[in-house]
This record gives sequence, C-alpha cells and structure tokens, in this order.
Amino acid sequence: MKAEIITIGDELLIGQVIDTNSAWLAIELNKLGIDVKYKISVGDDELEIINVLADAQKRSDIVFITGGLGPTKDDITKKTLCNFFGTKLIQHQETLNLITQIFSSRNLPMLESNINQSMIPANCLPLLNKAGTAPGMWFEKDQKIFISLPGVPFEMKTIFESEVAEKLKNKISNTFIHHQSIQTISIGESFLAKKIEDIEDKLPPHIKLAYLPSLGIVKLRLSAKGNNKENLVAEVDSYKTELIKRIGKNVFSESDDPIEKIIGDILKEKNKTICTAESCTGGYIAHRITLIPGSSSYFKGGIVSYANEVKTQELKVGKDTIEKFGAVSKECVEIMACEARKKFKTDYAIACSGVAGPDGGTTAKPVGTIWIAIASQNTISSKVFAFGNIREINIQRTALAAFDMLRGELKQLN
Amino acid sequence: MKAEIITIGDELLIGQVIDTNSAWLAIELNKLGIDVKYKISVGDDELEIINVLADAQKRSDIVFITGGLGPTKDDITKKTLCNFFGTKLIQHQETLNLITQIFSSRNLPMLESNINQSMIPANCLPLLNKAGTAPGMWFEKDQKIFISLPGVPFEMKTIFESEVAEKLKNKISNTFIHHQSIQTISIGESFLAKKIEDIEDKLPPHIKLAYLPSLGIVKLRLSAKGNNKENLVAEVDSYKTELIKRIGKNVFSESDDPIEKIIGDILKEKNKTICTAESCTGGYIAHRITLIPGSSSYFKGGIVSYANEVKTQELKVGKDTIEKFGAVSKECVEIMACEARKKFKTDYAIACSGVAGPDGGTTAKPVGTIWIAIASQNTISSKVFAFGNIREINIQRTALAAFDMLRGELKQLN
Repeated sequence: MKAEIITIGDELLIGQVIDTNSAWLAIELNKLGIDVKYKISVGDDELEIINVLADAQKRSDIVFITGGLGPTKDDITKKTLCNFFGTKLIQHQETLNLITQIFSSRNLPMLESNINQSMIPANCLPLLNKAGTAPGMWFEKDQKIFISLPGVPFEMKTIFESEVAEKLKNKISNTFIHHQSIQTISIGESFLAKKIEDIEDKLPPHIKLAYLPSLGIVKLRLSAKGNNKENLVAEVDSYKTELIKRIGKNVFSESDDPIEKIIGDILKEKNKTICTAESCTGGYIAHRITLIPGSSSYFKGGIVSYANEVKTQELKVGKDTIEKFGAVSKECVEIMACEARKKFKTDYAIACSGVAGPDGGTTAKPVGTIWIAIASQNTISSKVFAFGNIREINIQRTALAAFDMLRGELKQLN
Repeated sequence: MKAEIITIGDELLIGQVIDTNSAWLAIELNKLGIDVKYKISVGDDELEIINVLADAQKRSDIVFITGGLGPTKDDITKKTLCNFFGTKLIQHQETLNLITQIFSSRNLPMLESNINQSMIPANCLPLLNKAGTAPGMWFEKDQKIFISLPGVPFEMKTIFESEVAEKLKNKISNTFIHHQSIQTISIGESFLAKKIEDIEDKLPPHIKLAYLPSLGIVKLRLSAKGNNKENLVAEVDSYKTELIKRIGKNVFSESDDPIEKIIGDILKEKNKTICTAESCTGGYIAHRITLIPGSSSYFKGGIVSYANEVKTQELKVGKDTIEKFGAVSKECVEIMACEARKKFKTDYAIACSGVAGPDGGTTAKPVGTIWIAIASQNTISSKVFAFGNIREINIQRTALAAFDMLRGELKQLN
C-alpha cells in the first residue's frame, strides 16, 4: 500500500514554518506497514491543491492532507475538498456540540468563524478532534482513501491516534515493514561505509541499509520488507549483530534514542548522579538532560556561569587563573567541573567553556574553540575541541562531545 | 518564475529526518523574487526520482534537488540525473583537487568512494563545495534550470550562497515579492481574525494575509507581489501600521525574531541585566536567552535548581517553605527569583517551578501546573499557569510565558 502526504499552507513554501507533521505521520504509517512514497507541500491556492490531489489519486492508495483547516480566511482546504469531490458543506452536530463545550468551559463567546468549524463536506466521515475545533475528515473514492487533518501538530496527532490508526489497520493488507537503527559516534560516514562494505554488499534485496549523518553522529538504518514478521525481524537482527561487532566502540545505541537518554539510562541503572557547569552552552546541556522524562532521579542541578564573575563567585575559579590562562582553558574548565561536583554533591559533573561565536574569537582561541571537562570522584578528564563558526552548531556540538566524553567515563563502571 | 524543491532520501519518508533544507531554500528564493510552488520528497529509488523530475520539468521553471549525493551506496541522485538527462559521469579535476586537499589537511587516507565524489554528469556545470566533498550541479534543458545540491544542510547552504544565488539573479525577471510579519502573543487566532476582519476584507488581490499560529503566538504575515518594489513596500507598510494600531498591546514584534531576541534588544538598549533560576525548565530558558549572539552583554548566569536541596542550598528556599507550600508554589518561586537576582547581581531575574510531566502530578497540582516569577529591584510579580500534559511543550510554554511576563515588566522602563 502506497501512501502520500500532502501538506498545505503558504507558510511551508516561503520557509516560515518547518514541516514536522509529515515526519511524525511517516513514522506512524510505517508502524502500520504502510510505505510513504511521496510527500508534497503546496500553498493555499485552490487550483494548485486540486492539481496535487489529482496526481495523488493516480499514484497512491492513501492520501494524507494536513493543514488549511483553521477558522481564518486563508484556510481553504475544506472548500477545495468539496470542489474536488463535487460536494458541499453541511453542518455536523456532534462537532458543533464539542466546539460549544470548549468555548463555554473557557468562558469565551463563540464567533461565527468558530461555528463554521463544524461545517464539513457532505461525503466525508468526520473524525472527532479532542484537542481543538477543526474536525478531521475521512473520504473514500474509487478504492482510494483521503484523510484530511489539521496542520496544528498536537491536533493532527490527537486525531490520528484516536480516530485514524485503528480504521487504517482494518483497511490494509499484511505487508510488514521493519526498521533497525544502529547509532555511531565519532566516525566519518565514508570510513564507516568502508569498514562494513562486505556486509552491505551481501544484504538481500529486501533489506536496505541507509546512512543518516548528523552532527558527529552517523545513524545506520536497516529497513526490511516482507510478509512474515518473525522471519524478517530475525534476519535483520543477525545483520545488526554482525554490523555492531564490526563497528565496535563507535556504536552507542541500537535505538533511535538521543545519546543523553542512553547516558541517563546508565546513570539510573548504576544509581549515579550528575550536574552541569556551563559557560558557552548557556544551559543547553542541562536542557538536553532534563528533556528526558525521569531525569530528576539522576540530574541534581546546574549552573550557567556565563559571566566570569559568576565563575569566580560560584565555582571558585580564581581571578588569577582567568588572567593567566583565560576563561577558555583547561585550568578553568577543570575547576568548574570539580567545584560543580562539590556544590551539587553528585558523582559526576560536566563543565564547558568556549568561544561560541560569532564574536569573541582571538588568533590563539578562534571562534569554535571549546574546552570540556568531566569530573568524577577520583578523576578529572578534559579535552579541547576546534569546532566551526556557527554559534548554534557550536553549542550543539559541545553538548554532543560532552555526552560522548561522559559515555567513556561511564563505561568504566562495568 | 515558478520554482520547485525536490528533497531525496528514504530517511525523509520514514520520518527519521525532518526536512529543514527546503524551508531555508524557500526563504532564500523568496528574497530573489522566486516563488516556490511545490516541495516534494521522494525516496532513494531511481524510478520514483525520475517520475518526480519529469513532473517538475513540466510545471516549474527552476527545480532544486537536494540529497542523495553522499559517498555511500544508498545515494543514487548523480546516477539518476545521468539517466534522466541521457548522459554519463566524467571526472571533474578541480573537485578532485579540492577533495584531495581536504583529506591531506586532515591527514586522512582517501578512499575510492571519496575519489568517486569528483565524478559528475557530463552535461552539468559543477558548483564548487567549500564545505564538503560532494559538488553541486547546475543543468539547463529546454529553458528549465535544474540545480542539485547535497542534503547536508551546511554544505547545501554554502554552495547556494557562494555558487547559486548570483547565477540565479542573472537569470530571473524582475517580479518582486515582499513579506511583512506582525507577531502577537496571548490572543487566540479566531479572536485576532475577528478584531481585524474589516482590514483583511479590504486588502487588494495582490496582498495576502496569513495566520501562523504556534505555542501562544500568532504570527500574521502580509505577502505582496508586484513589479514596483517601492510602491509595494509602501502599500504593505500602511496596512501593517493599521493592523498594529488595531491589535494593540498583543503585538510584540514586526520582525520574525523570537521574543527572547526582542527582550534582549530592550535589555541591551536600557543597559539592564538578567539571570535565571529554573526548576522544571531545566536550563531551557537560559539556553533560549544565550542562543542570541551578544547575549553575554545582558545575561550574567543562571542556576538550574532541579533537586529541592539545590533550591534550599543555592537559593535559600527554606525547607519549611517547601514542606508547607511545596516546591511548585508562589512562595518558592518568588524566593527563587529574589535570591537569584542577589546571587548574580542583576537587574532582573526569571524563576520558574512546576510539574513538567509526565510524572509528578497530584490532584491539587496536576501535570502542567507551573509557577513563574519575575523579580526586579523593587518589585516581584508571579503567576501560575495550567498548561497541558506534554513535557516538551510545557517546557516551551513556560519559557514563552516567562518571556512575556518579562516583556510586561520591561515596558515600564519607558
């Protein structure tokens, strides 16, 4: 079964909004064994939308449409779907009741535009929206399914989960798709490819290997397709094991979880705690750690010592140390890590100090120079990195490098 | 001139990667007066790519293609372009020299896959890549332009800026596109629409108004198209002024800048400083502030007091206060703000404490209950919010609400 995702909105074509809906939808459809073959974005323009719908009807079995269902005049998806299917809008009482309830519970008056949200094309099955006022819509025409959902991610997800997933499951055949990730760190894409070339070459046609490089990380993805779920999983599993054995220490996970989740799981398992002392990353490392649910069991706290006087006052980095070596130095960052560990009474501490840019670079310490230290009860290790010129990327790279250094330290617990 | 963006890669269709390239490209093309009419994503599948290229050739004048240029076997864009244009790969000496130089400067041996990166279709104009090993490619066929760029965002951007933008400028006609944003906060989309209904109704056909809602913020965008740049800008300007006057205090910016940049500009202008004391947001507020270049001139530092003992030790929140009122309380968060202000010696402090979820909620304080306080020299203001169930969104909403409260305080400086 081939699916296609159409996202509607001028904002997608002028770059004001990044489309995250279609990635989420693709993951959910994959879980159901549905392949997404195309994703297409089009503006709030009736003719263009109808062209895209006509193309989709020809080449795909299931067509998802997101966006353009808001109460304002620029949203024209509902009207356009009526014209595409040759039908008209009628009022849906259950949706009207739901909207009325939302507004009365918030003690807000209802506008005509809110009432209009309950008008739906006569030929559709409405999909109740428990998270907002725009209902989803399910159409069937010539053996093809069209599903229209709001563009607001939370509403789209809520309707998909409560109204769409189960209905789709009952419609589809039993092709099974299985993905397996292997995440690697600190090894370049082409070297990784060379290292595993012979394993890749012997993969059967129904198993594909993809390389997904991002900052400092290359994720490998094995994707297999077949009818027998058990055999497929076992087959992928054996290639996975072979790849992991070959790649060695650069592998940090077999899941899609970010490295901070992997580290958090180890800390939790070993009953260890951590804290942070950040300069150039300005709280980003603590943020990444605390985005993980349950991180309060191992993360105690952190200090963002952005100004030098905060490094001196809160982390006892001597003024003479800063004068002699600078705030971006091995000396400074090691004191930061040790003192943070004492302050927050944790087993480990991460500290960093660097020149994130775009200003503040010197010949000796250009933009992108970052020192990172990891302190534990008996050890302190530190390292300097030469990253690039882009502030945001330097901040991200620093967090990643710090997590990888910590991963190295935690390995010694085994 | 109609442009179309084709992004290639299985990872885009199974949701493992979110496409940010096409949004960036759309913004750059808009600056050149080029309208993006379609964005389409397709997998690493020769037949599908050729179908999409053929469709694009029919309906668009300029076709951008990103992705599938890596050194690994799953990347097939170059081979596919050869088949599409009926040509073959030849070696490009200048690119080979560049690749050789990159590897020798990093002291790494060159693999065959790296050398192959210098092979390009015979009919293309190569676009030098100063950020990586995959060159971009410029094709012209039957009055249509095809531009193929790597999928790695940094490489794509580097080639576009250094090799593509200027060449495109010389190719295109003189249609001008002008966008103007107006950012509002704490007003719902439908109420905003009602408030400005008559202004929207009288807009001429060549000026469109769009509503872009996100967490707590609705961005309005006026988009105009025409041949006379000056007249167009003046016309949009007059509607902008009328809208801002009508909407009133909910408008916080006429730029696309995030609210923390707007606040940072005010702090810098008024020569004021700020710090943070975060519990549930775990460093995210400090991170948002310090993502802005130059924030070191007004941001001194912050504390992430995640564990209660850190609140007590570092911010003097009495154990009795926590016992009596809880860590998620007006009392706790006000002390956090006042003490942080003293600790970091700043003019203002932001503090927050809440239940981000998914665990930790009670009947009295369910998940999503968040207290925020802003302290200044003479005042302390605090407010409780009831957000939702999703950890990540609660963290983001808290930061936004805190920035809006601070914006209110800063207004009084005028």
